[in-house]
Amino acid sequence: MSDRFHVTYLLTLAPGEDAEERIRALQLEQSAELPDPVVHSLGMQYVTGSVTELNVMGEPESAGDPNTSRYAGTSGKQGSSHLSEAAASGASAGPGVWPRQLRVTIAWPKNNHGNEITQLLNVLFGNISMKRGIAITDIRWEDVAGDETAGGGRNAGGERDLVAAGRNRLLAGPAFGIQQIRKKWNIHGRALACTALKPMGYSSRKLADLAFRFALGGVDIIKDDHGLADQPTAPFTERVEMCVEAVDRAAQKTGCRSRYFPNITTDPHRVTERFEQAAELGADGVLLCPMLVGPALMHHLARLNTGLPIMAHPAFSGSYVAQAGTPSTHTAPHGFEPGLFYGGLMRALGADFTIYPNTGGRFSFTSEVCDAINSHARNSGMPFAPCFPAPGGGMQRDRMAFWLKNYGADTTFLMGGSLFEDPAGIEAASRAFMETLGA
Amino acid sequence: MSDRFHVTYLLTLAPGEDAEERIRALQLEQSAELPDPVVHSLGMQYVTGSVTELNVMGEPESAGDPNTSRYAGTSGKQGSSHLSEAAASGASAGPGVWPRQLRVTIAWPKNNHGNEITQLLNVLFGNISMKRGIAITDIRWEDVAGDETAGGGRNAGGERDLVAAGRNRLLAGPAFGIQQIRKKWNIHGRALACTALKPMGYSSRKLADLAFRFALGGVDIIKDDHGLADQPTAPFTERVEMCVEAVDRAAQKTGCRSRYFPNITTDPHRVTERFEQAAELGADGVLLCPMLVGPALMHHLARLNTGLPIMAHPAFSGSYVAQAGTPSTHTAPHGFEPGLFYGGLMRALGADFTIYPNTGGRFSFTSEVCDAINSHARNSGMPFAPCFPAPGGGMQRDRMAFWLKNYGADTTFLMGGSLFEDPAGIEAASRAFMETLGA
Repeated sequence: MSDRFHVTYLLTLAPGEDAEERIRALQLEQSAELPDPVVHSLGMQYVTGSVTELNVMGEPESAGDPNTSRYAGTSGKQGSSHLSEAAASGASAGPGVWPRQLRVTIAWPKNNHGNEITQLLNVLFGNISMKRGIAITDIRWEDVAGDETAGGGRNAGGERDLVAAGRNRLLAGPAFGIQQIRKKWNIHGRALACTALKPMGYSSRKLADLAFRFALGGVDIIKDDHGLADQPTAPFTERVEMCVEAVDRAAQKTGCRSRYFPNITTDPHRVTERFEQAAELGADGVLLCPMLVGPALMHHLARLNTGLPIMAHPAFSGSYVAQAGTPSTHTAPHGFEPGLFYGGLMRALGADFTIYPNTGGRFSFTSEVCDAINSHARNSGMPFAPCFPAPGGGMQRDRMAFWLKNYGADTTFLMGGSLFEDPAGIEAASRAFMETLGA
Repeated sequence: MSDRFHVTYLLTLAPGEDAEERIRALQLEQSAELPDPVVHSLGMQYVTGSVTELNVMGEPESAGDPNTSRYAGTSGKQGSSHLSEAAASGASAGPGVWPRQLRVTIAWPKNNHGNEITQLLNVLFGNISMKRGIAITDIRWEDVAGDETAGGGRNAGGERDLVAAGRNRLLAGPAFGIQQIRKKWNIHGRALACTALKPMGYSSRKLADLAFRFALGGVDIIKDDHGLADQPTAPFTERVEMCVEAVDRAAQKTGCRSRYFPNITTDPHRVTERFEQAAELGADGVLLCPMLVGPALMHHLARLNTGLPIMAHPAFSGSYVAQAGTPSTHTAPHGFEPGLFYGGLMRALGADFTIYPNTGGRFSFTSEVCDAINSHARNSGMPFAPCFPAPGGGMQRDRMAFWLKNYGADTTFLMGGSLFEDPAGIEAASRAFMETLGA
C-alpha cells in the first residue's frame, strides 16, 4: 500500500513557457500554496509531492534553451506505469496540435487529503480549476479505495497515528454495481432501458399517468427528469407516492414490475432525508445530480444501506470536463478527462449508474469520449464494483442496434424525448424500445 | 413582483448557425427537455420561458438568409432593461472578435425552480454546462431575493397555491455584510486585512504559533488556508482550539484582537456540525469552499444564526467561470460571467466575504474582471447586504497603495505568501501590511 496518492496531469504549455516551472507551480498551488523558498525554509518540501513519471510531447522552441533543458523532449519514469488504456484517449489532442504538452504524474502525500472526500477533490482540482491548460487524465484509485478508516488517523488510544493515516482509504464506489443490480432485479444477458418522466410543470397526476404507460410498455427504469424537484406543480412526496402507485398498478396488469427512480436532488442539508423518504415511499432507486449537491454527498448516501441504487445525472457538471483541444478551436484541455470524470469519478463516488450525453445527440461528446466513459465505468482494473454507463440525450430507437453493438450489454440506455414523439403512443413505443434490447 | 425569473445569456454562434434555433434549443434544454412538437402537443409551452430582450451582435453570413432573418442584426426588447453596469464587462468579447453573438434575456416561470436553490442552479446552468459557447451574464436577483416562502407554494389550508409559488423568494444573501461586520468589529473608514495559516502538513501547534505572530502584527482576519481540513497533522478541533487560544493570547499583549476563521469545508453531511463547532470553540467566522460542499449549503449555513460571518473560497470553482474570448484563443465564453459568479452569486448565496484571484498574481483574471467582481459584490442595486470582495493569490505589499486606490476601502485584502517571505519576520511584516491600510 503506497502512502502516496498518484494523479496524472496533461499540461499544455504556452509558447516559450518553461516546463519545469510549470510543473513546480502546480505542485505548490495544490499543496503548500507558498513560494518555493518559503516551503524550503519551513522544511515542508514533502507536502508538495514528487514527480514519478514524465512524458514531454513536442519540441522546445530552441533545443539549447537552458530554461527547458531538464525536461525538454525527455521521458522520465520512476515506478511502474499506471495509465489505464481508457485514460489514453479523451482530453489529449496529442503532439502536433499543441507545440508542447507534458503528461506528468505527481505522487501526493496522503496526509494532504486526509479523511475527507472534499479535501481529496480540493487536492485534485481546487485552485488549479482557476488556471487554464491543466487536464487531469488519470487517478490511481487503489491509493484511495476501500473502506473509510474510522477515527481520523488516530489509533485505538486516540493518539495521532500517521501510519494509520497513510493507510486511509476514502472511496468505496457503488453500493451495488452492475452484477448486484442484475441479480437484485433478475435481468441477465441484456442491456437495460431507462426513460424519464417530464416535463417540469406537469402535475404529479400526469407524471404518474406517464409512469403507468411506460411501465405497461415494460421499461426497466422510469426515472424523474432531473428537472423535477419539489416544485409546487409536482411536490416530491406527492409525486413519489403517485408514481410508485402507478408502477405497482401496471405491474399487476403485466406481471412484470418496472422500477421508479425519483430525483432526490435538493438543497444539500435535506438530501439525506429525501433519500430515506424515497426508500420509505417504495421507490426502487434514486436519481441524484452530484454536482448540484456536492459530489462527496453521493458517496455518503451510497453508504446508508437504504437498499436503493443511485443514478448520477450530469447536470451542472459540464464545466469540469476537459474538451479535447483541436487545431480549429485552440482550446487547451482543462478539467477532468471526460472518461475519468463521468466513468471513473462518478463510480468511485458511489454511482451505480452514470448518465452522460451520448455522441450524436444534442451534445458534442465524440464517440472516443463515450467509449472512454464506458471503459472507466466498467473496467475491472478499478477497485470498485462496476457501474452501468447510461448514455442519453437525444437517442433514437432506430439507432439502438448500432449502440448495442458498440456499447455492449452492460449498458443502460436512456431514451426520453423520442418515446414521447412516437405516433404509436408511449406504451407501444416503450414496448418497441424494449424489443430492441431483446427483452 | 414578477412571476418570472430573468436570466441573460451571451450565446456565441458558430459560422452558419441559426440564431433562432440556438435560442429555442437553450429554452428547451433548460426546461421541458423535450422536442418542441412534443411540448406543444402537451400544451406545456409556458415552461420553456419567453424571450424578453434580444441583442444580436455581428452580421449573418448572408443578409437575405431566410434561416436567420427573424433575429439577424436586430435588437428587440420587451420590458425595461435590467442589465447592470457591471455585467456589461467580463465575459463578452463583443462584436469584431466573434462573427456573431447574441445577448438574450429569458424569463423563466418561477415554478421551474420552485423552492430549492439547487433547482435554481439547475435552471441556470444544469444541462447547458455540457454545451459550449453559453455564458450567463446577468441574473435579475430581485426575482428570487428575500426570505423563503415556507410551505412549498401551498396556502394555509395546505392546498396548492400557484400564486404563492410565484412569490417564492429563495435567496437572502449574506447574514451580515459589510456594514454589520464593520459595526461588529468596530473597524471604520479603512480596508480590512486577511492572511492565511499554512502550509498543509504543519502541526496544529505550529499553525497556532503562526496565528499568534500574525495576531501580534494586528492582521484583522487570520484564516485557515483552504487546504487545511481535518488532516491527521492538524485535526480540525485541535487546530481551532489552539488557534483561538493563540489569538486570545496575542490580544492580551496588544489590547486589540484579531479574528480567526477556521476552514469548515468537509463532506457535506458534516459541514453544519463543523460550523456550529467552530462557533462553540470561539472562532470569529469561518472559511468555506462552496463549490466543494455544494453552493446551496452556504446559503443554509448563513441562516443558522451562529453569529459567524462566512468567507467564501473559490477552490473548485474555476470551471464555472467564462473566460473572455479573444481572437488569439478563439475560445467562446462559456459559464458564468466571473463578476456575476464571484461577486453576485457568492453574495446571493450568503458570502460575507468573497475571495477571488486578483489580477497580476498567480492567476489570469484581467483588471476588468476584478472590477466587475468588486462591483457585483458591493453594488447597492442588488437586494442583498453588500459583501466584502477579497482579492488574493500573490499580492505584494509594495503594490498595496495601488490596489487600495483602485479597489477602495470596502475591500478585504488577502496576503499570504509574501508575509512569510519577509526577512523582517511575520510579526513585523504583518504590522507593515496593516500600516499600508492606515490601521
